[in-house]
This record gives sequence, C-alpha cells and structure tokens, in this order.
Amino acid sequence: MSKRSKKNYYDNISDRIVKIIPLGGLEQIGMNMTVLEYGESIVVVDAGLAFPTDEMPGIDLVVPDITYLKEHQEKVRGFFITHGHEDHIGALPYVLKEINVPVYATKLTMAVIETKLAEHDLLGTVERHVAEAGETVSAGDFKVEFIHVNHSITDAVAFAITSPAGTVIMTGDFKIDYTPVKGEPADLQRFGELGRQGVLALLSDSTNAQRPGFTPSEQNVSEFFDDAFREYKDHRILIATFASNLDRVQQIIRNAAESGRKVAVEGRSMVNIIEIAKNLGYLSVPDGVLVEMDELASYPIAKTCILMTGSQGEAMAALTRVASGQHRTISITPGDVVVFSSTPIPGNEKSVYKVINDLSRRGATIVNRATHVSGHACEEELKLIYALTEPQYAVPVHGEFRHRQANAEIAVSMRVEKENVFLLDSGDVLELSKTKAEVTGRVPQGMVLVDGLGVGDVGSVVLRDRQNLSQDGIIIVAVGLSKDMRCITSGPEVISRGFVYMRDAGNVMEELRQTAETAVRTVMETKYPDRGRMKNEIREAIGAYVWKTVKRSPVIVPVILETE
Amino acid sequence: MSKRSKKNYYDNISDRIVKIIPLGGLEQIGMNMTVLEYGESIVVVDAGLAFPTDEMPGIDLVVPDITYLKEHQEKVRGFFITHGHEDHIGALPYVLKEINVPVYATKLTMAVIETKLAEHDLLGTVERHVAEAGETVSAGDFKVEFIHVNHSITDAVAFAITSPAGTVIMTGDFKIDYTPVKGEPADLQRFGELGRQGVLALLSDSTNAQRPGFTPSEQNVSEFFDDAFREYKDHRILIATFASNLDRVQQIIRNAAESGRKVAVEGRSMVNIIEIAKNLGYLSVPDGVLVEMDELASYPIAKTCILMTGSQGEAMAALTRVASGQHRTISITPGDVVVFSSTPIPGNEKSVYKVINDLSRRGATIVNRATHVSGHACEEELKLIYALTEPQYAVPVHGEFRHRQANAEIAVSMRVEKENVFLLDSGDVLELSKTKAEVTGRVPQGMVLVDGLGVGDVGSVVLRDRQNLSQDGIIIVAVGLSKDMRCITSGPEVISRGFVYMRDAGNVMEELRQTAETAVRTVMETKYPDRGRMKNEIREAIGAYVWKTVKRSPVIVPVILETE
Repeated sequence: MSKRSKKNYYDNISDRIVKIIPLGGLEQIGMNMTVLEYGESIVVVDAGLAFPTDEMPGIDLVVPDITYLKEHQEKVRGFFITHGHEDHIGALPYVLKEINVPVYATKLTMAVIETKLAEHDLLGTVERHVAEAGETVSAGDFKVEFIHVNHSITDAVAFAITSPAGTVIMTGDFKIDYTPVKGEPADLQRFGELGRQGVLALLSDSTNAQRPGFTPSEQNVSEFFDDAFREYKDHRILIATFASNLDRVQQIIRNAAESGRKVAVEGRSMVNIIEIAKNLGYLSVPDGVLVEMDELASYPIAKTCILMTGSQGEAMAALTRVASGQHRTISITPGDVVVFSSTPIPGNEKSVYKVINDLSRRGATIVNRATHVSGHACEEELKLIYALTEPQYAVPVHGEFRHRQANAEIAVSMRVEKENVFLLDSGDVLELSKTKAEVTGRVPQGMVLVDGLGVGDVGSVVLRDRQNLSQDGIIIVAVGLSKDMRCITSGPEVISRGFVYMRDAGNVMEELRQTAETAVRTVMETKYPDRGRMKNEIREAIGAYVWKTVKRSPVIVPVILETE
Repeated sequence: MSKRSKKNYYDNISDRIVKIIPLGGLEQIGMNMTVLEYGESIVVVDAGLAFPTDEMPGIDLVVPDITYLKEHQEKVRGFFITHGHEDHIGALPYVLKEINVPVYATKLTMAVIETKLAEHDLLGTVERHVAEAGETVSAGDFKVEFIHVNHSITDAVAFAITSPAGTVIMTGDFKIDYTPVKGEPADLQRFGELGRQGVLALLSDSTNAQRPGFTPSEQNVSEFFDDAFREYKDHRILIATFASNLDRVQQIIRNAAESGRKVAVEGRSMVNIIEIAKNLGYLSVPDGVLVEMDELASYPIAKTCILMTGSQGEAMAALTRVASGQHRTISITPGDVVVFSSTPIPGNEKSVYKVINDLSRRGATIVNRATHVSGHACEEELKLIYALTEPQYAVPVHGEFRHRQANAEIAVSMRVEKENVFLLDSGDVLELSKTKAEVTGRVPQGMVLVDGLGVGDVGSVVLRDRQNLSQDGIIIVAVGLSKDMRCITSGPEVISRGFVYMRDAGNVMEELRQTAETAVRTVMETKYPDRGRMKNEIREAIGAYVWKTVKRSPVIVPVILETE
C-alpha cells in the first residue's frame, strides 16, 4: 500500500481501510473475540472463553490476551455480543475488569451476561445496552446492526458492521431454521438487502462447514420426543441436554405436558437459565407442569420427567452424579429411561460413554439417537449466506483449521476470488479496503490461563512443572548444614509424593537417603563446597538412582537449610 | 446348587461344572483375560494390556491382576492366544514372569508374541507351541480347538474349549469376511458342526454389537485405494493405518505397485510387523516396491508412497511428528496427500483432529473417508454365530457394558433364554453345567499399573497424589529447629513447583514465608511443642492463606529438620 497523508486517504473512498484482528477463536473451538478497527474507533465482537485442554492441569478456564485492546483503550467503543454461549461471553468478566467499556447484546444474551457480571461483582460498574434484532447502534465510526439468526440458544444475532470502508458481516454462530420452535427464521431478507448494497467482507461460522446439506430444524426433535414419551409411557424419563438450548427445553416441557407428565429441573446452570427465560417470556410453561425436585416423588413415576445437565459427561453435572450413584436425591432404578438430547463434543466421548455404561449397569434404558440437531450451519446454509451477501472478501471464523478450510472452499465455490479468502491466525491484522486486502502485521495474542482467582499467573513453566509432577511425582531431599558447609547438622531426610507407595517402599526410601547423604558428603569434602553444586549433586545422584532402579523421572527438589 | 460329594458330582454328566472367570476385558476395551477351570485344570484365553486413562498420570500400561492364577499355579495348563493385538497379548511378558506356563498361538500371533518376550528377555524360559487353525491341543481336562476367524490382524482364531462339562466357544475378536484379502472366510462350517453337537456357552465379541448390519469386507477398502491412487496421481501420498492390519498393508502395497509407486515404511511398530509378516510369507511384496526411506528421495514425488503409523494421533508416532514438523526425515509440502486409513478410537478424537489441523496448515490434502472397515462383527454377524452355535448360555465379552448389553439383547433375540445370558464383572466366578448356571463367587481382580520398571508399586494413593500435584502444584515449607523445638535454627524456607510463576510472585512467596514462620512460632511457644502439631499448623496456615488469596489447593509438605 502506498504511503499517503491522512487527507488523501479519505479522498478516495475505495482506499478506506477497516482492520480485522481476531484475538481468538481460530486455533480451537472457543475463545471467540474479533476486533474491528477503523481510524480512531474499535468495536469488539464477542468475548468468549475456552475450556482447558489435557495439557493444562488445574486450569479452570482460558481467556484471550487483550493486550492490544488495553493499548488502544481510548478507541474501544464497546463489546458487541452475538449470543449467550460461554465461548462467546465467558471472558467478559475478565476483560471488563481490564477495560471497562459498554456491552451491547439482545435481551436474553444480556440476562445471561448479567448473571456472570453479578458473580464478579461488576453489575454496578459495567455499562450495558440491550438492543433488538433490527436495531442499529452507533459506535464511533462504526454502525452496528443486529440481525436475527437461528442458533441453539435463543436471541442470537449476526452483526452488519458498517464503517466508511464498507460493511463487514459477522454471522456469529448460526444456522438457518425455517421452522424454529420460537420466533422467526434467520432474517434472510436483510442479508439479501445488504448483499445488494454491497458487502465488503463476510466472517462466517465454520463449525459445520465439513458437513454437506442442511442442518435439520429444531422442530424435528419434537417428533422424537413425542415418540419417546409414547413409547416409554410407563417409565420415568430423565432427559439430559445443554442448559442453554431453550428451544429444546421448550419442546421437552411442551411434550411432557401433553403426555401428562410433571417436569423437575436439576443442575444449577439449567435451573438458572430456565428461571431467566421464564421471567423474560422466552419460555412458555403450562401451569403446574414444572415442579420442584422434592415434589416429584408425590406423582406416579410414569408421570414424571427430569430435565437435567450432564449430557456431555461433565464431571460435576447432575446426570454424571446420578450415574455414579452420588446424587443427593436422584437414583436410577431399573425401568428408568435416560435420553441424551445431544451429541458428544469431540474430546468428551469417553466421559459420555462412561456415564452411559454406569447408567446401563444400574438398569436404565439409554436413548441416544435422533434426539439432537446441531445449532450450526452446514455446507448448503453457508452457500446460501454467501449467495445472499456476495461478499468481496471471506474470512472463515469459529472453528479449527480443518473447519475453516472447508468454509474457505465453500467461499471459493460461491465465486469469492481465491486470493480474497483469508485463513487467519489469531493476532493477524487484516487490512481490508475495496481495492486491496492484506495481512499487514501481528498484535499480541494468546491464552491467558485462569486458575482460581489468579488470571495469567500460571504460564508455560508452571504448566510444565505440573505435568512433570503428575508423571512421576516428586522427591524432596532436605538436609541441614553448618554455615561453612563442613558438617551435616540434620538429615538428609527424603520425602516423596506421587512416587511410589511408601508403605511398600521402605527399602527404596532408605537407599535414596543414603544416596543423598553420599552426594552431600562428596560436595562437603571438596575444597569450596557451595549450595549450587550440592543441589546439583543431589539432583543428579537421586535422579540416576531412580532411573536405574525403576526407570522413572520424578521432580527432585533439594532443600538445604544452613544452621545459624 | 445343592451340596454334593465329589463322587456324586461326577456320576451325573449333566452336573459337571466348568468355571468361567474373566480377569479383565469387561470394564473397558482392553486387558482381555479369561480363565476356564474344570476340576484340576485351568486354561487361560488371552493376556492383554489396557492403556492408561487420563486418571492415571505417568502410567505406561495396565495389566490384569493374576492373584487367582498364582494361587492355583499348579492347575494352569497354558495361555491360549486368539490373535496378536496388544489388548490380547500385551500382558504376557508381565504374567509369564509371575507364572511360567506354556503359550499356545498361531504362527503370526506367536511371532508377534516373541518380539515382546525378547524385549523382556523371556525367550529362553517360556515354552511356546505354534498351532494351526483346525488343530486341537490337549491341556489337562480340556481340549482346545483352534478355529479360523477373520479380524483386522491375520491368523486370528476362535477357541472351542471342551471339558467333560461341555464345549465353550470363545470367538476372540472377530468378523466374518466372505472375501478376505488373504486366506479364507471364518470357518462357519466348523461353528455349525459344533453347534449341531451342542455348545454349552458362547463368549463372543461385543465391540460392534450396537451397530446394525454386517461389517464390510476388507476388500472394499481396495477400491478406495485404487481411486485415491488415480485421483492423486500427481501427488505424493502418505497413508497412516494400524501397524498390525496386514491385510490393509497388503492392499496398499499391491495398489501402490499397480500404480507404479515405490513404498517406504515409517514407524518402528510397522517396520517390525511388516518384516515379520514378509518372513513368514503373510505378505507378498512385488520385487522392488518396498524401498528404504532415504531411497525414496531419488524417485519422482508422484511415484512415491509412505506407509506409516500414527493414524490415532499417538503422541510419538510417525505421522504425529510429521504433522508437528518434528520428524527427522519427512516434511509435508503443499500438494502432499495424507490418507487416514482408520477411524478414531473413542478418546483419541481430539488428538487425531489436532494432527489433521496441523497437516492442513502445512498444505496437505486430507483424505479421511471410506478408507477403513472395522475388524469386529456387527449385529447380523453376531446373529449368524448364535444361529450356528446355538449355545445354551451366552456370555458377552470384549467391550464396555453398553456393548455387552447390546450383545446380550442379540443373544435373547436368537432364543438364548434370558436367564442364561450373563453380563459378568471381572472377577466373577460363573459356574456352568448343562443343568444349572450361576455366579457363585468372586476372585481377586483389578488393574496392575506398570510405570517404568515398576509393576504394581503405583496404586490409588500415589495416583491421587499425582493428580493433586498436577492440579495446583506443591508448596514445600522447610524449617530447622533445635532439639527441644524452642528455637528456629534456620528457615523457614518456602519452595514451590507448579504453583505460580516465581519471578512474578515475590510478594506471595514472602507472605507465605511469614505465614509459615508465624505457624512455627505458635507451636514453639506452646507448652509441649511437637512435630505432628507443627506440621499440621503449617499445613493449615499455608492452606488457608493460599485459598484466601488465589483459591487454589496445592499439596503442602512441611519439612522439619531437628538440629543436633
């Protein structure tokens, strides 16, 4: 791009540049956060968390690095949130503590956000604006229009974000449901209108881009539940699904009511969101259908239904505790029917199968088919959105590389020029104008680990330590020495955790003690004994002995106490 | 069962009892081992290992508890091995060190076993007998007949194990392939003959019992490879599959040869088994097709094919190292085609997808469809085996509970009496006779963890320590005290691993030190200070401080050194 004065730059409308900077969401599912920057204005779409991987022991959750936003805090006009799922809102409490800017969202999304802000005591300090689909919000040089889409949580929106450089559409997570359980199909007319007017770039959901065809309507699930309630009319039915899938919850409650059942809800996140949705009018519950868990016992077992969390085998969720016999009030008896209204998210398969095995052992019948539809657009839906919006540039988002690559291929098949399709990495700065598009730089990005109250104080060194500790445990060698290091005043003592079972290891521990003592004396007897050398000697001697005898590599920590 | 003298017992042939005691293979995939006992004779079918779960950090592999076999060592006539997969042979080196009895297997299976025995220096001490399908081996009161079946490794057999109590058939892992790549379909005639003569019990493979229909023939994969070699005729092709699937390897080599490609093999386990199979005549390789890895570079890229391990995303396997750019000799260049000739085993999905993402980023085209058929019988094949053998009793084996339950339902649908179908737990003693069947007791069973050279020295306490260490790390508080515990001679020093990043945590560590010192002084100043109380006080004070400040629960180890 040629060097220009700011004046010239604004003279030619085609040269005006909007920057797109993803700060997460491209390396894995989760942690969605995208920065749009024009001149002195920044808007941020979504602020999601990711869940820790197996390589992050002890970590509770992961949020994006927002160094770039902090460095340009004066520009940031607000967070615009597409929908109320954790991978789009979960980082908000953490980032809002760092940069306090307004949050814009639809009614239900905001209600979910507010429960999070309340937990972090941020309700009093964070400015919040509720907008409806169809509304447009001004934010500096940007206008942000809320566009209704379908998804597995109610009140999801796409954004059309217009700056002098043109209109960028972000679909957020979406599907197209012509017959949704509640509300309207996605606002295809508006996507068409925007396309007719000219769309600079489309950033669309890649999650299901590898799947051909259309995602079925949420209503399809209804038939299944009708059948299930009929087939198992003499049985208690437990149904596990995602807490936030209110349309699913709505259908289950409706079908249960029609079959004359009472429904109780179990699992904190599900109880919470149902409460929110009822209060906001997003859920219509016939009188007397929802009852408290402890009232359920007073109805005939075949007239009851329990709606619960744990469809992914999550360790602490209601169904998991029921399966392992550790639930406070619910226990499985032969004849119970358990419906999984979900499919396992990759990585959760083993946990889900364990729950299924445990439930089966207790005599439950497991129903695990045709009970779920996805909330994400498949290939043909993506084509439809490309056809309606006809973007000049395509930037696949929301997904692993393989998903985004499939979305990129769809874009090309829909006549987006190949060189106009960008598979970005988080931190890339993509500059777009009507005449040019290129990645011009990088900004800081990455994962900030949250462990308890600590945000970012656990990094790669600590994680590596934790992994090493978990592999073969730790051996601590403590020894007291005189100040001149010529005399052992106590010890050495050898203590271990996670190494071998102590009661059977008397011999090993005594030999370790002797090995340590030899190492200490070796250094003591040198001309200039010093702590560093002694620690090394202990580490090496113990390490070698352990490797030789049991082929393990525990963490070895020498502790030298100098006596006054 | 009524009480009887031994004499009476043998008088009535219908009352003769064979015991079936599974020592593994019922709680998870893997660790298959089944004991059959009649009078003074025991035969054991298979001796498999299981791979450690996420809850077993640092563990290399898991083998069954064979306490029962050791207690009845004089009865044990031998191990009979169905086929050469790790989950059926992997525990052999460990159990043979405990009880040295003969091993019986077919030719290829024995060759695979021998490479394992060699690694453990057991070739000189273990008695081995090779038998062919069709042969019958006498083992005490048992006769064990080897029956040819199809599976994803060559030379797999079922066993018909006959004692005076009747014939028990164990299918081992099997499928029915009418058009196998090499050799014959499973010996259905023999199963039919045995059924006509009367089968007491059938123990059959449950892995695919939940899948309707038939498992496709291994030959179906051939067409796919034909197509792939044609479609990607201008590209280098890398193919990852299971090392032990020799029929797959055979087809790939054949198709590669037909398309004029040279094949190199990468990955130790695959190199080894191909070598074994070639030597035994189980693999026919056209002259000049197999070349060494480093020769491959001298051929045009489109005339090469690399056959490799890593189709499950295993951390150290060839393809995984290629994907992460850490392979010594192979690196991906755009245009390369990578074929996954496998489906992810549950639990491996995330690792496999990571490898796919990494390969895609490097420009590889991923082919991941129609490239694999299972090695296990689906519903209709199981029905066929029930129809042929018409067993009086059915004991589903090889699979998680949900798989075995599905197999049990198939058995009932094939007219095995419902009360004659047994879903056992490992350790159950099932006594079978023509007149009666019941679980009469339990024997010791369980998982023995192998970590490095240690077999069984890591138990639940050590595992829990490792898990705790991995969650929040460890804090060590070391203090030197005078003998009367009235005076601090050095410290306290606070050392941590895996807790917080030290360089940023100066403050925290100093406050921990002060907290520790206060705790020590509190106990020092009591009337009767003692070590136990002091350790408790340190643990509680540090624990409370850490929880209050960062909401974490590291392992806390107080070390008190008394100075002489």
